[in-house]
Amino acid sequence: MSLTIERVTVRDLRFPTSRTLAGSDAMNPTPDYSAAYVTLVTGDGPAGHGMTFTIGRGNELCVAAVRALAPKVEGLVLPEGLDDMGGLWKRLTSDSQLRWVGPDKGVIHLATAAVMNALWDLKARLAGLPVWRLLAAMDPAEIVALVDWTWLADALDPGEARERLEAKAPGRAARIAEMEAQGYPAYTTSAGWLGYSDDRMQALAAAALAEGWSHFKMKVGGDPADDLRRARLLRAAIGPDRQLMMDANQVWGVAGAIAAMRPLAEVSPWWIEEPTHPDDILGHAAIARAVAPVRVATGEHCANAVMFKQFLQAGAMGVCQLDACRLAGPNEAVAVMLLAEKFGVPVCPHAGGVGLCEIVQHLAFFDYVAVSAGLEGRVLEYVDHLHGHFLDPVRMRNGRYLPPESPGYSIAMHPESLAEHRFPDGAAWAAPPVAEAGEDLDEVGDWPV
Amino acid sequence: MSLTIERVTVRDLRFPTSRTLAGSDAMNPTPDYSAAYVTLVTGDGPAGHGMTFTIGRGNELCVAAVRALAPKVEGLVLPEGLDDMGGLWKRLTSDSQLRWVGPDKGVIHLATAAVMNALWDLKARLAGLPVWRLLAAMDPAEIVALVDWTWLADALDPGEARERLEAKAPGRAARIAEMEAQGYPAYTTSAGWLGYSDDRMQALAAAALAEGWSHFKMKVGGDPADDLRRARLLRAAIGPDRQLMMDANQVWGVAGAIAAMRPLAEVSPWWIEEPTHPDDILGHAAIARAVAPVRVATGEHCANAVMFKQFLQAGAMGVCQLDACRLAGPNEAVAVMLLAEKFGVPVCPHAGGVGLCEIVQHLAFFDYVAVSAGLEGRVLEYVDHLHGHFLDPVRMRNGRYLPPESPGYSIAMHPESLAEHRFPDGAAWAAPPVAEAGEDLDEVGDWPV
Repeated sequence: MSLTIERVTVRDLRFPTSRTLAGSDAMNPTPDYSAAYVTLVTGDGPAGHGMTFTIGRGNELCVAAVRALAPKVEGLVLPEGLDDMGGLWKRLTSDSQLRWVGPDKGVIHLATAAVMNALWDLKARLAGLPVWRLLAAMDPAEIVALVDWTWLADALDPGEARERLEAKAPGRAARIAEMEAQGYPAYTTSAGWLGYSDDRMQALAAAALAEGWSHFKMKVGGDPADDLRRARLLRAAIGPDRQLMMDANQVWGVAGAIAAMRPLAEVSPWWIEEPTHPDDILGHAAIARAVAPVRVATGEHCANAVMFKQFLQAGAMGVCQLDACRLAGPNEAVAVMLLAEKFGVPVCPHAGGVGLCEIVQHLAFFDYVAVSAGLEGRVLEYVDHLHGHFLDPVRMRNGRYLPPESPGYSIAMHPESLAEHRFPDGAAWAAPPVAEAGEDLDEVGDWPV
Repeated sequence: MSLTIERVTVRDLRFPTSRTLAGSDAMNPTPDYSAAYVTLVTGDGPAGHGMTFTIGRGNELCVAAVRALAPKVEGLVLPEGLDDMGGLWKRLTSDSQLRWVGPDKGVIHLATAAVMNALWDLKARLAGLPVWRLLAAMDPAEIVALVDWTWLADALDPGEARERLEAKAPGRAARIAEMEAQGYPAYTTSAGWLGYSDDRMQALAAAALAEGWSHFKMKVGGDPADDLRRARLLRAAIGPDRQLMMDANQVWGVAGAIAAMRPLAEVSPWWIEEPTHPDDILGHAAIARAVAPVRVATGEHCANAVMFKQFLQAGAMGVCQLDACRLAGPNEAVAVMLLAEKFGVPVCPHAGGVGLCEIVQHLAFFDYVAVSAGLEGRVLEYVDHLHGHFLDPVRMRNGRYLPPESPGYSIAMHPESLAEHRFPDGAAWAAPPVAEAGEDLDEVGDWPV
């Protein structure tokens, strides 16, 4: 019996997170965590589930872009249609008409991520493996063939990429066993949202300490005096031996970032994340030179592997925060992991939002097992939001991710969650209020128009 | 009587240009030139017309993104609502939820271009001036206030930008008179499309020579032997004293571009355009060093001013080909023109497509009058397509653009053209065939599914 991808369905899911200011930062004061949620329907076979992540308005554009891409995968015969994932990636990204509205960035690339994530979920389900194990079982040549090297080979030759993977291959089994026993180290952003009061931040930090966390991230980029006061409070709460990271969410210019980090150096941050515009490779490089030994971290808004390549070439990225939904699926994430390993830069993936922790953990486990073979300077972001909506939610222990074991990419949500959060007609959207940017939540009583 | 922007309408317009292979190149074999066409309806006042340009599929995404942006301009009271165009630009680009699906790139940025272009068209109509004259009448401080300097000031301080504009201000009137008398120099791409036969290319080149053209662009990036044969034919047709430019439309990697240009140097090209991925600043810089004295030209796919800033900082762009529909309207184009002038790089805007010549000529005239004050190395692209659809089409004489004189931004199309090219139900879309990528046009008989 042969299966096919009979059709692609896509849902506009939104979670009204702006009601609590969870997720608030200097650039994004009132996000409503959202997903363009893709299902590959195969009739009698398992469905493949994929998504991309947005923060509210604009999610409908990603939904529409998935519809534009759907004809490229509808009718694929399974499992052989998923044998050449590198070829499928090229097929999805090289339609010249659709490419024009990127290229390789923005809405069309976010939608490509959703479709590719669903194809990998389906491939892994058919293999009976979680995606990280499926990837970690590939030999070096297969891994290299996932990547489109056209615009990357000047930084890393595919032959060298294969050799570097081969050098790490002998230790894979031991590292898998290590991950099963101990999990992957994580850090928490749950205490440090910009919209939280000092008291709330301190209470959450104390609770996280009690749970075993050792790495804490806070948002900065608001009033400089507030930033310094909050940083001192958090450093006092966690003590001198744990790591404190800062995230400015792009609000500064180059000179402003350098100036803002001068007083904050007092609390010895490990990294400053997104100090300026995410496209500004040369600006990040200048900031990195000025704020060392504080590292510059970026990547959650880095659009594609060509951009990551340059951040690495320019010494502009001391921590590589790839995003599993902004990069166009595991293929492009693998390209970035191979590049980061070549340049000696740790990969600390972006997570949080809705579903990002569930998805990107697969990439972090694969990175350790097959690519980096090291944990030095590597921590995976964790935010304690919205995990209950997923059929295969992340499992945390002592501030570490435990490896997912169900087949697939851990994206599938409960049917009730899908129904409740469908925008705009799901039950979650039946009731006001939602805060608007810049408004005080307490003063908002009406549904925004 | 006060006017308001009562509502924003948007049309999905597509022209079936793939039927003739006009516009074919190595990356885009079968474009259907398209526009997300915006109308700002003001009741009793003039309407404002704007658009962004795409090449077919995906145009519907730009249409949807315009709808997402529309609430930000609906209800604006005129004319005072258009007094602070810099503030309006910030309002359109800083919605944190919509910004996430960019930021400042892809579908949401293309749609921002369409809306900003319409706002400028409306502002100019209310002033009774073409956009280029409206801009050229602004004093330096007003021009500088159009730009968001947050992420640009490390390369050009706004105070310095104002001083540089002030230094050029005394000559503005003389340069306006010069443009009225002689027009702005142009080059033609009409002869060199990759899909054209040798005979057709030679015949078109001969016809263009007879019309007075002195700069000719051809497409490369196909088979190397074909590229060299076609380049020799075109050089022979135009003689040694006229300029020949080449456009690879992104198909090469960095090493491939350098290798491909070595034999083509024989015909002394003036520039090689888009030799590699449009995001690869450092790659373009490496190519520029290797192929000098041939210049590297790029910009039509350069997403925003932050990217242009870096191309200029890195010496990666010897010719700045800004696009009036990919940059988010005149505000961002002004930012790029100011940066290019600072770095001494000529602006030779991208045009062609549908409507791009009509729009971008305004920016070229303004650039000469108020910013660059020079014509050395400056030519504006011209393609002889689809001008008849516009109410105020470009006027060419002896290979030069004559300045537009009707109020507005020259974007408004004839009502019949709007009706006929509405996708998918306009009359232009009633009949097959349309060539698909890679197919021979002569062999295509069926409507693609």
